[in-house]
Amino acid sequence: MSEMKKAPAGPQNSSLGDEIVGRINELAAISETSEHLTRIFLTSEHRAAADLILTWMRDAGMRAHLDAIGNVCGRYEGEVAGLPCLMLGSHYDTVRDAGKWDGPLGLITAICCVADLHRRGRRLPFAVEVTGFADEEGVRFASTLLGSRAVAGTFDESVLDVKDGTGISIRDALSEFGLDPDHIGAAARARSELLAYVELHIEQGPVLEGLNLPVGVVTAIAGATRLAASLTGMAGHAGTVPMLLRRDALAGSAECIVAIEEFCRTDEDGLVGTVGYIHAMPGATNVIPGQVSFTIDIRASTDAHRKLAVTDIVRQIENIARRRKLSLQVDVTHENRTVPCAPWLRSQLSEAVANEGYRVFELPSGAGHDGMAMIDIADVAMLFVRCRGGISHHPNEHVDTADADAGARVLLRLIENFRPRGAAQ
Amino acid sequence: MSEMKKAPAGPQNSSLGDEIVGRINELAAISETSEHLTRIFLTSEHRAAADLILTWMRDAGMRAHLDAIGNVCGRYEGEVAGLPCLMLGSHYDTVRDAGKWDGPLGLITAICCVADLHRRGRRLPFAVEVTGFADEEGVRFASTLLGSRAVAGTFDESVLDVKDGTGISIRDALSEFGLDPDHIGAAARARSELLAYVELHIEQGPVLEGLNLPVGVVTAIAGATRLAASLTGMAGHAGTVPMLLRRDALAGSAECIVAIEEFCRTDEDGLVGTVGYIHAMPGATNVIPGQVSFTIDIRASTDAHRKLAVTDIVRQIENIARRRKLSLQVDVTHENRTVPCAPWLRSQLSEAVANEGYRVFELPSGAGHDGMAMIDIADVAMLFVRCRGGISHHPNEHVDTADADAGARVLLRLIENFRPRGAAQ
Repeated sequence: MSEMKKAPAGPQNSSLGDEIVGRINELAAISETSEHLTRIFLTSEHRAAADLILTWMRDAGMRAHLDAIGNVCGRYEGEVAGLPCLMLGSHYDTVRDAGKWDGPLGLITAICCVADLHRRGRRLPFAVEVTGFADEEGVRFASTLLGSRAVAGTFDESVLDVKDGTGISIRDALSEFGLDPDHIGAAARARSELLAYVELHIEQGPVLEGLNLPVGVVTAIAGATRLAASLTGMAGHAGTVPMLLRRDALAGSAECIVAIEEFCRTDEDGLVGTVGYIHAMPGATNVIPGQVSFTIDIRASTDAHRKLAVTDIVRQIENIARRRKLSLQVDVTHENRTVPCAPWLRSQLSEAVANEGYRVFELPSGAGHDGMAMIDIADVAMLFVRCRGGISHHPNEHVDTADADAGARVLLRLIENFRPRGAAQ
Repeated sequence: MSEMKKAPAGPQNSSLGDEIVGRINELAAISETSEHLTRIFLTSEHRAAADLILTWMRDAGMRAHLDAIGNVCGRYEGEVAGLPCLMLGSHYDTVRDAGKWDGPLGLITAICCVADLHRRGRRLPFAVEVTGFADEEGVRFASTLLGSRAVAGTFDESVLDVKDGTGISIRDALSEFGLDPDHIGAAARARSELLAYVELHIEQGPVLEGLNLPVGVVTAIAGATRLAASLTGMAGHAGTVPMLLRRDALAGSAECIVAIEEFCRTDEDGLVGTVGYIHAMPGATNVIPGQVSFTIDIRASTDAHRKLAVTDIVRQIENIARRRKLSLQVDVTHENRTVPCAPWLRSQLSEAVANEGYRVFELPSGAGHDGMAMIDIADVAMLFVRCRGGISHHPNEHVDTADADAGARVLLRLIENFRPRGAAQ
């Protein structure tokens, strides 16, 4: 058995990793500035990147086009034309001063896998499509997943009037890009066209590195609740108010932050809680803070778990505030449902991981991904690839070529062995 | 005994409080803007206020002049001319958007006490001087106690080149005001001229109000140590880094803040510790803070106590940082020695409080005062007057007329019964 795992069956192409990394670098050269990688929705960089990706798709034997929102869409027919597809994909926009792997790794790997099939003349009993989503990060219009929402048919047309920092609306930006803002609906796909949506993505966290594993199977894209908390006490002179007479909003907030951390640390199901922003007023060295606001970001791999955690955390904060005679305001500012990865797809992905000789490790995705939109028209699965130090959204983001290769081999094996839901084993 | 306290011996002037409050309001009308009380060093408001105060001093039977730094100086001769003086005083500059009592109450009360002596033709075996210090708050040049330092002969001439926010140096501002920056030394007084320095001031804290006492005797002007702390961990995605792999600089800082508060709360000698400023980087809802800086302000009524506390607190923070694998930088940014009030003066002040029928209550001053400079040429004592809610440096700063009257009666009793150090009882 162990021998079998070390010498797995299936296609071998030792250069997949090299090919992927070469294209990662080629795509990364398309950037708003040469020093910092920045590729924003509906810009000339978007256009140049799309043209390059379309070329790669066509070279891989796909028909390829730009859709109504600016996604790049490639289709590799199956044994006969017009079959439903296994859709692969990821996004090709970036944050500002980004790394080059977040998004492009999944898109390029998918194209390279199809290219490998094409080189071998391999046709499958289903089509394979690759979609490069045009806007996942939401940098320009502060509204994420615009690309995948259009494909899922859930694009909210009311956002067309949202403006970027320079006053240009999505509507105007689309027109200027050569797209028709009144026909975004044309990008939408029907549920019947898709057998599944599978995305490969860098982990953006340190878990796989810590376990010395190149890949991991995602259990769910964790839902998130964001809260804004504000504690109000009484400002006062740092020298003249004895400790026992204080209503210090920062000391109270600090107790809350410690409690949130402790609550999440002791959770056994991967709950994470983060206070990322804090502001103390008036904010002077010699003044007891009278008011402090901070944010709380809570994520878990099921909605029930997250909601229970939010309730418990809010109750703890309320108790701290009450005991300290601080007034408390807590508001939910943002809430994302959990997107579970479909068990039948996860098990095929795990099988592919195992058959490539790697230990199957499952983990939730704490970050959001296009699958959060795609779930509305297809079952979703994700494969994570290890990245160095868990660093992402930063120029130091890095994936080893060997890991890019491992991810590609797992994905290729999944494709070649893919059985649609309910199909006989 | 209790009858005696309720009908105290000594001068009675039920209108002292009214007179003081009237003048407080008159002086408060001299302000940079009519909506917000702001009276800054070496401005036309400084000039107008000085003129008014000099008039009051002369009306109270004093010789009065503006000294070389802009302090107002009044002298009420004793039984013979040229005797050493009991110096009373406080400051008449304000912070921006100030209350009207912080400073002026002590200065005006002192003048009103002298006026009362003068009305009664009462001469004492020592002179009484009243000094209104021109710059205690340090708003304009970010250097406090300029007025009292000049009187104490400790004015640092190198600060003459310090500039205000508009680029005007102290030197130029003095010249423009009509003072000679090269002769500030002329404001300095000799130790032999002063028998003591006694200042009445609003408490600027809530202790007297909590005890329902109109006045309190200050034990010491607490020294202060200010620290700047910076904790560095590792920034990361709020969703992708499991709790146990985090090096969260804000959670670590929160633990430090709670520990500082706990350390000070459980101290039995009035130690106070305040974290007034905090900044978390990068400061985004969905990013684990990688670096956090915050300030720590520690005050105690003896230097030894404060220094020990600082050492203990820094050790606690170091332990927290070490356990959390955060790197720590702590720097002392400011240090003020404690200024103890002289026991012989305190006991005369306590006697005056008791003989006015009030419970003698002693408390440290957590805020800084001109006594911090005056200690270099005289023994110092301070009398605190209750202020509403402990509020200061704010338009809501308030002193009841009855309390202003109580403070004045105690001060007047002190003056009339004053025995120089070592004098026979």
